[in-house]
Amino acid sequence: MVESSSDQILADADKVDVAFLVVGDPFSATTHTDLLLRCRQSTPPIPVRTLPAASILTGVGCTGLSLYNFGQTVSMVFFTDNWRPMSFYDRVAENVKLGLHTLVLLDIKVKEPDLAMLARGKVVYEKPRFMSVAQCAQQLVETEEAKGEGICGAEKLVVGVARVGADDQEIVAGTLGELSEVDMGRPLHSLVLVGSRVHDLEREFVREYAVDKGTFDKAWDAQFGPGEKV
Amino acid sequence: MVESSSDQILADADKVDVAFLVVGDPFSATTHTDLLLRCRQSTPPIPVRTLPAASILTGVGCTGLSLYNFGQTVSMVFFTDNWRPMSFYDRVAENVKLGLHTLVLLDIKVKEPDLAMLARGKVVYEKPRFMSVAQCAQQLVETEEAKGEGICGAEKLVVGVARVGADDQEIVAGTLGELSEVDMGRPLHSLVLVGSRVHDLEREFVREYAVDKGTFDKAWDAQFGPGEKV
Repeated sequence: MVESSSDQILADADKVDVAFLVVGDPFSATTHTDLLLRCRQSTPPIPVRTLPAASILTGVGCTGLSLYNFGQTVSMVFFTDNWRPMSFYDRVAENVKLGLHTLVLLDIKVKEPDLAMLARGKVVYEKPRFMSVAQCAQQLVETEEAKGEGICGAEKLVVGVARVGADDQEIVAGTLGELSEVDMGRPLHSLVLVGSRVHDLEREFVREYAVDKGTFDKAWDAQFGPGEKV
Repeated sequence: MVESSSDQILADADKVDVAFLVVGDPFSATTHTDLLLRCRQSTPPIPVRTLPAASILTGVGCTGLSLYNFGQTVSMVFFTDNWRPMSFYDRVAENVKLGLHTLVLLDIKVKEPDLAMLARGKVVYEKPRFMSVAQCAQQLVETEEAKGEGICGAEKLVVGVARVGADDQEIVAGTLGELSEVDMGRPLHSLVLVGSRVHDLEREFVREYAVDKGTFDKAWDAQFGPGEKV
């Protein structure tokens, strides 16, 4: 919506102050950087002040996984029958090969036109949809089946988070197979693939959130080795 | 200080509410994760609620560099005559090889005992010190001279930031050689090494902050190729 309405957002900004509020940190989306560029290129340029804010990119630290051990962040979109973009896989693979954690941000559809209605000339929006940890886990496993490099198969350890920072924040750790079945309730959800360059302190912290501590320990030892006993 | 005072911080937490305020996001430091573990391990466990907050890890998006194109974050400590830890270099190299940006967090010394005084039995604290972008740039170049893998030599493009989020926030882009000379004023400072997997939009945004647009363009083309004209 920002993309298509930036003229409207910036209208009159030469006369009055315009405030633009976003969810998360203002620079976590390229769209907002683009908006700033437009301000700069206006004649005369529109002065802009931005305020940093809390973001899932650091909020995910609530899992106990060290933010220093994260590699690139990737996005997962809703797969459809004929559109299953898997370009994120190569980036995850790069992180995995370095032993780094990967934060996966999950798709949000909040103002999608209903295509069947659109064909009949009516603009009707679909119900908002937010990807769940379970669906993301399923799509990761499906992608692994298509790619086969051993990056995100059902046996890999991940941590799912829901509503980070809210009173009913939830954290669940387990294999992708386990998290494919888990119901983490209302949005927003995110998921982290655990990398092998992981400290015992991180293991200890995350283990508390395991769906099943037995399978967690087994999967951890298989993936990362037993480490020191904590 | 948190490390040595956690017992004191948690004293009476079974009777009264204890609030612990930090600069930045609470999970951007391992120390705070450790504090949470102690709460969990107390008898009985101390319930904890954490609130995410703005952090330089995302605040650095103000440079216009896409947060999706960042790799691991590293730290730079004050080099001394006999202590010049360069372990960050390998992590930066990993990012560089993938074409990713690297955020470098700069050392802060806020409660360091004066060792000469300590030897005479007196505990006197040194004046607080905060590493500047210029000093970090110099240490990066020095590290490159010691390691020689072509990761952070004087010709590499970087972006320095100071006081992100404050009214007098400053952003400066240029080569490490140029930024070794720049005075960005009061703390806190951070620095970003620009990776090659960079979009024209990022180039356009960052270029505005160049110390010298001529050397910036030349360094950019040499490092990343000319890209499309914007």
